Amino acid sequence: MGFEPSARAQDLVARVDAFLRSEIEPVEAELHTAIRTAGDPWQPQPMIKDLQAKARDAGLWNLFLPPAEPGNERYGEGLSNLDYAPIAELTGRSFIAPYIFNCNAPDTGNMEVLLRYGTDEQKKQWLEPLLDGTIRSAFCMTEPDVASSDATNMEATAVIAGDEVVINGRKWWSTGVGHPDCQLLIFMGLTDPDAHRYARHTMVLVPRDTPGVKVERLLPAMHRYDEPHGHGEVSFTNVRVPASNILMGPGRAFEIAQGRLGPGRVHHCMRLIGLAEKALELALQRGTSRTAFGKPLVNLGGNRERIADARIAINQARLLVLQTAYLLDTEGLAGALSEVSQIKVAVPRMAQDVIDMAMQLHGGGGLSDDFPLAAAWTSARALRLADGPDEVHRGVIARIELASYLSAAQEAK
Amino acid sequence: MGFEPSARAQDLVARVDAFLRSEIEPVEAELHTAIRTAGDPWQPQPMIKDLQAKARDAGLWNLFLPPAEPGNERYGEGLSNLDYAPIAELTGRSFIAPYIFNCNAPDTGNMEVLLRYGTDEQKKQWLEPLLDGTIRSAFCMTEPDVASSDATNMEATAVIAGDEVVINGRKWWSTGVGHPDCQLLIFMGLTDPDAHRYARHTMVLVPRDTPGVKVERLLPAMHRYDEPHGHGEVSFTNVRVPASNILMGPGRAFEIAQGRLGPGRVHHCMRLIGLAEKALELALQRGTSRTAFGKPLVNLGGNRERIADARIAINQARLLVLQTAYLLDTEGLAGALSEVSQIKVAVPRMAQDVIDMAMQLHGGGGLSDDFPLAAAWTSARALRLADGPDEVHRGVIARIELASYLSAAQEAK
Amino acid sequence: MGFEPSARAQDLVARVDAFLRSEIEPVEAELHTAIRTAGDPWQPQPMIKDLQAKARDAGLWNLFLPPAEPGNERYGEGLSNLDYAPIAELTGRSFIAPYIFNCNAPDTGNMEVLLRYGTDEQKKQWLEPLLDGTIRSAFCMTEPDVASSDATNMEATAVIAGDEVVINGRKWWSTGVGHPDCQLLIFMGLTDPDAHRYARHTMVLVPRDTPGVKVERLLPAMHRYDEPHGHGEVSFTNVRVPASNILMGPGRAFEIAQGRLGPGRVHHCMRLIGLAEKALELALQRGTSRTAFGKPLVNLGGNRERIADARIAINQARLLVLQTAYLLDTEGLAGALSEVSQIKVAVPRMAQDVIDMAMQLHGGGGLSDDFPLAAAWTSARALRLADGPDEVHRGVIARIELASYLSAAQEAK
Amino acid sequence: MGFEPSARAQDLVARVDAFLRSEIEPVEAELHTAIRTAGDPWQPQPMIKDLQAKARDAGLWNLFLPPAEPGNERYGEGLSNLDYAPIAELTGRSFIAPYIFNCNAPDTGNMEVLLRYGTDEQKKQWLEPLLDGTIRSAFCMTEPDVASSDATNMEATAVIAGDEVVINGRKWWSTGVGHPDCQLLIFMGLTDPDAHRYARHTMVLVPRDTPGVKVERLLPAMHRYDEPHGHGEVSFTNVRVPASNILMGPGRAFEIAQGRLGPGRVHHCMRLIGLAEKALELALQRGTSRTAFGKPLVNLGGNRERIADARIAINQARLLVLQTAYLLDTEGLAGALSEVSQIKVAVPRMAQDVIDMAMQLHGGGGLSDDFPLAAAWTSARALRLADGPDEVHRGVIARIELASYLSAAQEAK
Repeated sequence: MGFEPSARAQDLVARVDAFLRSEIEPVEAELHTAIRTAGDPWQPQPMIKDLQAKARDAGLWNLFLPPAEPGNERYGEGLSNLDYAPIAELTGRSFIAPYIFNCNAPDTGNMEVLLRYGTDEQKKQWLEPLLDGTIRSAFCMTEPDVASSDATNMEATAVIAGDEVVINGRKWWSTGVGHPDCQLLIFMGLTDPDAHRYARHTMVLVPRDTPGVKVERLLPAMHRYDEPHGHGEVSFTNVRVPASNILMGPGRAFEIAQGRLGPGRVHHCMRLIGLAEKALELALQRGTSRTAFGKPLVNLGGNRERIADARIAINQARLLVLQTAYLLDTEGLAGALSEVSQIKVAVPRMAQDVIDMAMQLHGGGGLSDDFPLAAAWTSARALRLADGPDEVHRGVIARIELASYLSAAQEAK
Repeated sequence: MGFEPSARAQDLVARVDAFLRSEIEPVEAELHTAIRTAGDPWQPQPMIKDLQAKARDAGLWNLFLPPAEPGNERYGEGLSNLDYAPIAELTGRSFIAPYIFNCNAPDTGNMEVLLRYGTDEQKKQWLEPLLDGTIRSAFCMTEPDVASSDATNMEATAVIAGDEVVINGRKWWSTGVGHPDCQLLIFMGLTDPDAHRYARHTMVLVPRDTPGVKVERLLPAMHRYDEPHGHGEVSFTNVRVPASNILMGPGRAFEIAQGRLGPGRVHHCMRLIGLAEKALELALQRGTSRTAFGKPLVNLGGNRERIADARIAINQARLLVLQTAYLLDTEGLAGALSEVSQIKVAVPRMAQDVIDMAMQLHGGGGLSDDFPLAAAWTSARALRLADGPDEVHRGVIARIELASYLSAAQEAK
Repeated sequence: MGFEPSARAQDLVARVDAFLRSEIEPVEAELHTAIRTAGDPWQPQPMIKDLQAKARDAGLWNLFLPPAEPGNERYGEGLSNLDYAPIAELTGRSFIAPYIFNCNAPDTGNMEVLLRYGTDEQKKQWLEPLLDGTIRSAFCMTEPDVASSDATNMEATAVIAGDEVVINGRKWWSTGVGHPDCQLLIFMGLTDPDAHRYARHTMVLVPRDTPGVKVERLLPAMHRYDEPHGHGEVSFTNVRVPASNILMGPGRAFEIAQGRLGPGRVHHCMRLIGLAEKALELALQRGTSRTAFGKPLVNLGGNRERIADARIAINQARLLVLQTAYLLDTEGLAGALSEVSQIKVAVPRMAQDVIDMAMQLHGGGGLSDDFPLAAAWTSARALRLADGPDEVHRGVIARIELASYLSAAQEAK
Repeated sequence: MGFEPSARAQDLVARVDAFLRSEIEPVEAELHTAIRTAGDPWQPQPMIKDLQAKARDAGLWNLFLPPAEPGNERYGEGLSNLDYAPIAELTGRSFIAPYIFNCNAPDTGNMEVLLRYGTDEQKKQWLEPLLDGTIRSAFCMTEPDVASSDATNMEATAVIAGDEVVINGRKWWSTGVGHPDCQLLIFMGLTDPDAHRYARHTMVLVPRDTPGVKVERLLPAMHRYDEPHGHGEVSFTNVRVPASNILMGPGRAFEIAQGRLGPGRVHHCMRLIGLAEKALELALQRGTSRTAFGKPLVNLGGNRERIADARIAINQARLLVLQTAYLLDTEGLAGALSEVSQIKVAVPRMAQDVIDMAMQLHGGGGLSDDFPLAAAWTSARALRLADGPDEVHRGVIARIELASYLSAAQEAK
């Protein structure tokens, strides 16, 4: 592979891999059954806490953290995006692994925001328990009543009133809000409708238990509730928090969202690559172990060609994500804007297709919950919308392409 | 439209359409909520029985029935496949309509089997209450332990022991078995492993309450249980029924399955076309009523092109199904074998793609259960496996194409 | 097939089929070789005239003609679009058949224009020799210097000066202009730039030998010149013709173009379906007669699945074209606008894909001119642009779809 | 970019780029016109020799050469695959550049074969003039009468008779054989039909002017003859050459073909990536400079989305080729077998699609020879067959994938 991880990362990759195989994979099916048959699926299974403790003891904890920056040294020396990428891929093979390693969205993104943009006080209050895994968090941005693909549409309000912020409105797809440990909401709201369109919104830290915050319902994504984390529709009615809960300052929400994007999308995409690899592995397993019309399934019709196409698609996607990680590391988000959108378009679609192929090879089993394929498929599908729909990202890529063409054409004159 | 329904059918189409709009659509969302929030979702909602009574009173009942054949006149004069097709399309726009009109799978297929192959006694006992809607039925063919895409693989047994049949084995994806009114299982089992591969299996009528029949679990299809009908995994342990419960005779299961196929697939496909039309309508509704980046969604990027492609795809698919219905009516299954497989490949894939497009236009809403899109999508996806996976049908089409080419080439010599 | 041709058409179909097999197919390869090795490929091969005479004697001449309208009876009683469709499909199997039967574009469209919109004098002078096949014609609309997908862009001028029209400008893709018998150009030019955008342009009959008309060059379409007909780039420099050469009247070019569209696109599409059938037949022939890795090609990898997909795609496309022909016959162009665009998008793409598959099965042979596949593929590709690019047609379909949705939504209120 | 070329390669890339822009691009259209209008297009244009001399003087000559191996030092210190890749990409932007830099197929592959497997005598006689560019060569493997996708099918014979080899049979798609400087044919023929299937064939150096060698005809690939190089059908009738003309030894043809494959496919694919970039650039140029329906083309319908998809596809493909080059450099062909097949499947298809999109944006112009798009598209299409059809490569990838899965599964037990 052309994007070699550092020696430190290689060691971590090997240890994450071993942990996955010895500690997580053997119990995963059991855990899903436990959730399914629990009286209350929203009550986290104790098994998770045990595994988290083991992972932490093994030094496989908060691996998502970026390299230390001045002032943040005490939160640890993290990995570059390129070094973390193969770890994210491994964790993507399992639906619970990201939680076990404290590397799951949206907590990772929220922790990054606090790390980069939080005050010392904010870090102490929220970042530290998140890094400890003692609390969880949600990100409240998307709204049910407007096309949220255009983030300037957001109309929930964050009005500054003296030394308080008053919050009103309704958000949905607030992932993680169903978990009993969720204590922090990062809320994005409209503060100054007359400002420049990218300076109207503010991000505010809202304790989950502030009066006026109400989880109206938990939403199924393609019929799955993803218990015990869940995706919530949350109403905010005259919610008041101190102005010191504002992140960076009024009107700076887009700036923060921007900084949160790059690494988060690399993580999502690498996890999807792990998931696609898992699906391909299951396809090979099923295809070689079942027989129809006198042949192993894999030897029927176009099945081998589909396996080849899956291998090509996964490899291309992985390389594009690694390249994006490399650009983020070497040139920052500004040098990777198009690539971040490219992976966001390419990888979920690729994963959806590979998983669809694997489901098809599993027959009815592929639709059931005897295999992780149905859940894998819906995860990939949902990611064609989460963090911006494909179409918006294609727009970004085309805009950059056009600008780059026009500037080169100008220069050539 | 080139495939004009008869005057009688046109009248029925208009009345079904009116019933759907006035009686079913207004309450459908309410019904889904009722199921979702019921203590026991497997307990049918009373609303259904009421609507069924209304539909029956309106003469919109058992419309799936084929034209009367000698000896079957008393079960009514049904419609040709071509006449029933537009009715099936309409019912496909709603998830509950097929039940309301007593036109849902697998009961329709089971009723057709009884009508065509049942003895008078079997008809009296099972067909009549099914036509009345007082009982429901399931079809037990697919097995968890073998690749059921090759139906000769089925290894559950139906052994003839004197004047009894002894049944053992395990089936799954037995749709409808979760419903409290389900009283009849049509079971397919291996009787004579040494016979010709298409003469080994037998179909047997098994009362649901026969000792040894056990619904082991209800299966989610892409996370949905389709309550209150459900898809079951059913074990049969030394289940004994009288030999008079055999359909047609020992070893004749393939013959029966064959006869059941053609119309059933036309129904499935026409319903999917209705579902795709519904999804396109929702896409247009959302696309014209929401705004992003200063424009209605429908005017952004490639959205209009995708709507055009959906229209083309739906129209092509509908015409192919109508042509298949026409062939079934005029030449019987033998003259429509390739076409029946063609629609089975083309239509679910088309529906899946159109619905995916509509979901994408709905953003997060498209994944939730606020719209019928997630359920529509999983239905279409499941139908790429149910009744034979795409790949098996492509094999059938290619075989017929090759035979036809070779015979023409032979003749030309 | 659900769209049964009339008895008269069935007889013609059978005779065209027999003529193709006995007279055309046996000599087609020979003819192509003759053209390729001729000193001057633009000199028509005498074989063509002989075959035309035979076809005419057999009553297989000008079959494209529409049903007689009042005043036009003397030009013969033609066929409905639905009746002509299967004949067009048959002629599409061969690159020369359309010429043999005097049914080739653009002469057919030009004859239709003269028939519908020509004065008696214009008909006598131009329509009659075209119907006789003694002259040929070209249609001069597309321009090299503007995006001609938007026909209002055309900037060549047709200025009315007293009882003359003065023509200036440059056209290209004027098909047929390379043929020595081409004597008539139908020219579309800008007359009144201040009129409504659809009333600015005029169509004028321009004799090929009018001073100032110059064929600047003949254009290859994907490296093929289509000798001896060709596609020309034509300059018009102060070309003067009598005002009586105007069709219908000044500013009525769009009206005429509109009327020319529907049937012409049905013809193109049905010919492509014939071509796709031919390609599939060749694929089956090659696939069953060559061996690799110990098996006939057709049994390798996904080849059978691809053959099945080709069959499905051809059948769906044919039905959509027949439905469009039926609508044109029963409701006129106004009732078939969306469908005419639908087939224009769907059929060339389908043909391109089916032919691509057949080429792939032929290996290097498929790229050579030993088989008609390379020519078939480039023809299909060119038709994704000719008569309006796919994208413009998708725009038309979406516009109609939206209007229809909005009007239904309005009504429902 | 994650696969950084060495400093030496970076310098060469910059110089090749400058040479392309200043010396080749300005004259390329002129050259194509000269070929097209030449009395004899098979007579090379003098311009080429001049440009070759310039390129050689500039040190941009034979850059394809691999790193020196013991004994081959005198042929120069070449570049690694990874270092040569971006140079190949640049040369792929132009149809003549590969010749100008003496880096065109099949001469490069033939030179590599001679370098790796030739005796000193063979190198002196053939490799040196090829490196000098004073002669050209062809590779005679594919046969018209058998499915050559399975190379064991080859039935032309190379019989050893004493100290001679006697050659009989017919080959086609012998690229380069039309060029007047072509003096060497590398011929693959059947020597021992009873040997192991991979040890039956022999490679022999055959001087073009040996009695019995006859170029029967030159073949068009999608209507293009690629003058003055051409693709020939060549018959061999009792052609006798000394046994010392055998490469490596009798029965070793597969071994040699194998060694020739990897780098050649990387070159082809990198050139296609250059071609796809060129097509995208043309699409942007046309899309921003033409107007329809009141907007620049690029802002109509799905055009921006298609540009984004092209960017994603090109970037993914490039990364996969670079990764393959890297593997060839670090692990040899044995460690890159699957990847070499992966790029062979992915890249021509990607290029075909990107070029198709660019053609569509060019309207009729895209089909003409006013733009290099028609030639680009047919080149990409041809490469889905040349060097093995996609389907064969998918078979290789699936075989490796299965073996790797089964060995991992075995190990896990």
